[in-house]
Parts: sequence; structure tokens; C-alpha cells
Amino acid sequence: MTQLNSPQGMRDFDATVIQKRMYIINTIKGIFELYGFEPLETPTMEYSSVLMGKYGDEGDKLIFRVLDSGNPFLNIKDLDLSDAINTVSAKNIVSEKALRYDLTIPFARYVAKNHNKLIFPFKRYQIQPVWRGDKPQKGRYREFYQCDADVVGSNSLLNEIDLLHIYQDVFKILKIPIKININNRKILSILTEYCNQFINADNKITTTQFCTILDKLHKIGWEKIRLELLTFGIPDEKLEIIYKLINPEELNNLEILEAFSNQFDLNNNDHKLAVQELQQILDLCFDIPEIKIDFSLARGLNYYTGMIVEVLVEENDTIKIGSIGGGGRYDNLTAQFGVPNLSGVGISFGVDRIYDVLEALDLFPKNLQNNAQVLFFNLGIEECKIAYKLLQQLRSLGIKSEIYSDAVKFDKQ
Amino acid sequence: MTQLNSPQGMRDFDATVIQKRMYIINTIKGIFELYGFEPLETPTMEYSSVLMGKYGDEGDKLIFRVLDSGNPFLNIKDLDLSDAINTVSAKNIVSEKALRYDLTIPFARYVAKNHNKLIFPFKRYQIQPVWRGDKPQKGRYREFYQCDADVVGSNSLLNEIDLLHIYQDVFKILKIPIKININNRKILSILTEYCNQFINADNKITTTQFCTILDKLHKIGWEKIRLELLTFGIPDEKLEIIYKLINPEELNNLEILEAFSNQFDLNNNDHKLAVQELQQILDLCFDIPEIKIDFSLARGLNYYTGMIVEVLVEENDTIKIGSIGGGGRYDNLTAQFGVPNLSGVGISFGVDRIYDVLEALDLFPKNLQNNAQVLFFNLGIEECKIAYKLLQQLRSLGIKSEIYSDAVKFDKQ
Repeated sequence: MTQLNSPQGMRDFDATVIQKRMYIINTIKGIFELYGFEPLETPTMEYSSVLMGKYGDEGDKLIFRVLDSGNPFLNIKDLDLSDAINTVSAKNIVSEKALRYDLTIPFARYVAKNHNKLIFPFKRYQIQPVWRGDKPQKGRYREFYQCDADVVGSNSLLNEIDLLHIYQDVFKILKIPIKININNRKILSILTEYCNQFINADNKITTTQFCTILDKLHKIGWEKIRLELLTFGIPDEKLEIIYKLINPEELNNLEILEAFSNQFDLNNNDHKLAVQELQQILDLCFDIPEIKIDFSLARGLNYYTGMIVEVLVEENDTIKIGSIGGGGRYDNLTAQFGVPNLSGVGISFGVDRIYDVLEALDLFPKNLQNNAQVLFFNLGIEECKIAYKLLQQLRSLGIKSEIYSDAVKFDKQ
Repeated sequence: MTQLNSPQGMRDFDATVIQKRMYIINTIKGIFELYGFEPLETPTMEYSSVLMGKYGDEGDKLIFRVLDSGNPFLNIKDLDLSDAINTVSAKNIVSEKALRYDLTIPFARYVAKNHNKLIFPFKRYQIQPVWRGDKPQKGRYREFYQCDADVVGSNSLLNEIDLLHIYQDVFKILKIPIKININNRKILSILTEYCNQFINADNKITTTQFCTILDKLHKIGWEKIRLELLTFGIPDEKLEIIYKLINPEELNNLEILEAFSNQFDLNNNDHKLAVQELQQILDLCFDIPEIKIDFSLARGLNYYTGMIVEVLVEENDTIKIGSIGGGGRYDNLTAQFGVPNLSGVGISFGVDRIYDVLEALDLFPKNLQNNAQVLFFNLGIEECKIAYKLLQQLRSLGIKSEIYSDAVKFDKQ
């Protein structure tokens, strides 16, 4: 039987799907450019050494590796046993290249490679497919698009403010009702420190541990979080203080910052800076009512150092979907490629999930399909000569026109 | 040393290059859509069985194969010897998937898979990267874009006529002076047949052999072609007749067809059809003076069955570049995937070469870069609050505007 399917988790996109996807991608692209971001494209393949070890052990396993052409394994049946063993032990030659796994590492590699040529702050966007050997399941594919915008080489909060406005602008155009949750990694460090005051020296909780636990708040609820934190020996009444700060439903943004300021001494520089950063972002995002401070937000990625942001679809009976975007500030992204001290901040859009939301809420514009505006019947070869002249006149005016190519019966045409 | 380069033959594209590439791609896309072609995208990976054996032995070697995730070869150091040998002999499990090598085979696979759902004639265009393990050299990359348009399921010459007009329209917009050479595979068969009349039964020349020799005319000149054909035993005076037909410089299109008709009996249906097809194409392409009949044109690909076309840059001191486009009619493209009797015709554009031509002839429009139209100085945090409001007002009007993110010295900003 001839194989007609695509590999697991990979899809053909027909015209209807492409037009819908382009509607999303062009909307995002348009806003990125409006805010002064430049496009960048990196190759599908990177040297394995660029990718391996960057995404954790689990990530390493999911990276698709490309066999070197002319690799002995390709002709392995022709090798004799000792050759085979030698080849086997020389594992490194199998696969020098691997497929792009995300857009961040290739971007970091690009910035490190070109840091002498680039003008900072460097604002780039990148919209390209990535590949992951994940188990395919509903809504999870092995080939999917990522869509990122980052600014590197600037510490200014104006970048965060621009990126939050980009989220607002894009989802306003797409008509998706959203919530934008923000936090600051510094807040999470302060809360961790606070907890550690009550924990024995040999049992201290790290910020990463604390974030990982807290990040599950909206999934598993406070009660379970509380029990988990109790095992570290944090007294219940102190956890109650944490709870009041991270339970975002009851307070508005100013009240949350006020509650934090009441709890933590703002003469401490770290405390002051954490509040100040959030305050300044809120000040210049006064026109984004969707923004809500959520001190439990950590987004798992422990390379964030400043603002953290996550965009969720406003909950609704029709649709239960997780985050459709997220990002944050990180330091030293390019340090792993030998260029230290470049701070950056970035966001990404989940194109596939946005597609699902627009489909579920029936929000795709109705006029995306651009069918022919004029269709000529085919009445035979002589009539065609006249019809074709008219057809070309219409086309030269930019009017999508076609002539039925075969002179078959009218009803078929 | 940290690896910062991309693998051989693969490129980062920065904003300037992307904007130029998009200018080319969007021009072609716009014309494809004007003529009623629909976009299609197929996955980066296909099952190896879909690709292998489709591009000849040489092609097979150049296909990039992807290691199956969880493949034993990835952990080969952990395997013991007998495991290794077993694994070695089970070659097939190494690599089930491979990277797209061209757009034609995935398109054929798609049509075969969906032939019950598609409405024929099916007109699709496809613009995607492909990967080939060729030795990289100037102008030849291992990752490059192909750009194809095909109509399948129609025998009408109106498709050929549309495709020739597409070539004309695209290169008119791009301002590239071109020659469009066309031929018909039937002519090549007739010329082969003609030669075979004078050849012994045991030494007959096949159409493919004949085409391969003839195709080199513009490279090596008639004298060498003549010597090669003489070895088959074709008399010199008969070769003279062939030469007069295939030497396109001296005659115009009508004269070439007339010369052919004078030589070959048009009561023979095959002869008549060959001339008729070319004549009908010329009739409806009366507005494309760039078209020139060239009976030596074969384009190497022996799956063509009807019209063959090749687009060349009008020769010029600044630029010596080969073909920037080509195509033709083929039958039975999908037969290899179990769906026989679908005739098709297609063309492709060489995006990388077109890029080089536009660069060499300085034909890229000057206004491709879309830099910010308004730039705000950053005078400090309080001033920013006012500036940012203005900035957002401009952006909401679609005016690309930026504020310098850091309140550094004026001259740096």
C-alpha cells in the first residue's frame, strides 16, 4: 500500500486553513511592525551542539536530529561487523544537525554571532515552524508555528509596556476577549525569602521550588498548595499572609500593590524596586484594563528575572483553553553563546491555540476566502479567443478572474 | 568554542533580506491568486517511503533523513554488542522520516490522498523551503525556497496559456527582461522518430536519449551535438534538416511552425496535434512577444508529455544567469501514489536566482524598508507618560512610531 499520510503530528494545510492562519499571522506581524520590530528568519537546521542541553533532559529527547548525508548508517547493511562496531562507537558522526526546537535559542545564537554588527536595543520578531517529538494529541503537533517578539540590549520598562500594548492591539483586532496577568520575578523572590525566614537552615525553599508550587494555584487550588508549603515548615498563619497576596480575585491592582507594601518594608531596596516596576508598568498601561497583577504567576521558566506575563482567553462556556501567549524579562540570554550582560524581554503568541479560539468563538472574518470574482464559461476554442482577451483585461485591473478550462457541458462548468 | 555558525549551505535572513524576499514572493503570490490558484502547504517531513526512489539514485543520496525520536542509535553507546548488531541489521528503523526535497512529490501525495474530496481542475500554488544535501557553492544552498503553481485534472491548453501569462505578469512587475522559450514534447518524439527512420533496428535512439543530447545545444553548440548524433548512424543531410528546425535564431515562431509543417506530413495525427497545440498557445499568447518556440528545449525531465517552458533572463553584460523559471505538462503524476489518469501542467519560479537578478540589475524598489515614521526622544520617566500617549495615538492611526527605550544622552538616541 502506498503511504499517503503525513508523519504523526504533521499536517497538510489547504487553502481555507492557510487563509485563516495567514489572517492571524498577518495581524500579529502588522502590529509587531507598527511597534518597530524587524523580521528575522533562522535556518530550519542548527548544529546539534547549539540546541542540545538548552531545553533540559526532556527537551533533548524531543529534538529531531538529522542524519548527516553520506552517513555510514545510511549504508549500514554494506558495513562489515568491525566497521559497524567502530561506527557505533563513533556516535558523534551520526547526527551533526538538528531541527529548530524553539525560536529563542536560534535568536540568541544569531544575536551572539552578530553582536558587533547589531544596533542595540535590537527589536526582532520571528514567525517560523518548530519541531518537537512530543506524543501527538489533540491540539499538540510535532510541527507547529511559534511567533515571538523580543527586545535585547535595553533595561527600560518601556519595552515591557510596548509588548503589553502589542498583546492588547492584536487581540482587539482578532476580537478575542482576554485577561493579561502580570507579575515580577522579584516579587516571587521576596515571597520566597519571606517564607525562608520561618524555615530551618537545612530545609530552605528555593525560588524555583516556590514558583513551581505557586504556579499550580489555578490548577489545583490553594488548599493543596498550602499543604505542600506546610511540609517545608512554614507556619500556617504566615501562609495565610501569602494567600492574601496571591489570591488575585479579591483585590484590584492598586490594592494588591498596597497590600504588598503594607506587608513588606519599602525601605528595603529590593522590595521598593519590585513594587516600583509593576507600578510604572501599570501607569503607562492605564489604557489596558485587561491587565491584572497575579503574584502566583511564574510560568515555570526560571530564566525570567523581571516582568512575567501570561495572556488567557476570558473564560466562557464555549471555550476552555489555557494561555494563548506569554513572556517576560530575562537576563543573559546570549551568555550561553559567549556574549554576557545583554538583558532582554520578549513575548510569544500561540498561533495554533489562537486558531482554535477563533474557530470555537466563530470569530474568523467571513470574507477571508478570495474566490474568483468573475468566471467565464468555456464555449469552445474560437469563443475562448475573445473571452480570453476580456479575461486578461479584468486581471490587469486586479480582478480575480478565471475561465473554465475545459469546454464541457454547462452544468458541469 | 561555542558554535555560532549555521550548518553549511543554510542562512540567517535579516530584515533587509526578508523584505526583499517578501517583495518577490508576494508579487508571485499575488499573480497566482489573480489567476485563481489556491495556496497549499505540506509538512516539512514526509515518510521516507514517499520520497525515496522518486528523484533517482543521486536524489536519494541528497535527501536529508530525520532520526526517529527514541531511536536506539541515539543511545547507541548504551547498547551491548549484540544489540548493536541487531539494530544495525534493522536499518529500516533508523529513519522513517525525511525532509521535503521538492514541492512536486508532496503535492502528488496530497492530490492522491484527497482525490475524492478535491474539485478538478485543482489549481494550487505552493511556496515553501526544501532541503538538499548538495555540496554548497555560490548560489546553491542546502535550504532554499521553491515556488510552484500547478493545475491537475484538466487537459485544456487554457492552463498552459494562463501559466505563460503568469510568467509575463510576474516579470513585468519585477521589471526583469525575459525570454520565454517553449516547446512540445510531441515535437521531440516526432524528431526522434524521424531520426530512427535512418537508424538500424539494433541502434535506435530513445526520445529521452535524443532530448538529453539536444538539450545541450545552447551549452555546447551544434557541432558537438551533430557528432554525437552521427554515432547513431543518422546521415549528415538528415541532421541538417533537424538543425534547421531547432536553430531558433533565424526564424520567427510562425516560420518555425511552417518549416516543421513543410517537413512533416500533417495528415499524420501526431504531427498535426503537435503543431496545433503550439499554434493554439501562440494564438492566445499573442500579447506575449517574449515567447519563442525552441525545438531543442527538453528540460531534462522526461516526465513531460506536452508543452515545455523555460524562462531566461534577457542576456546582458551585467548578468549571466541560467533559467529563472520552467515547467511543463505531465501525465500521471499521481499514478505513483495509486491514482492514475490525472494530467497536469505546472510552472516554477527560482526565487533565489530572481533575487540575484534583481540585486545585480539594481531593480529592488527603494522603499521596501519600512522604518519607523516617527521617533520620540526619551526625556525621562515623567515625560514618557505624556509621550507614550501620543505614541499610542499615532500607532492607532497605523503610523509606525517608536520611543527610544532608554533615557540616555541625546546623541546616542
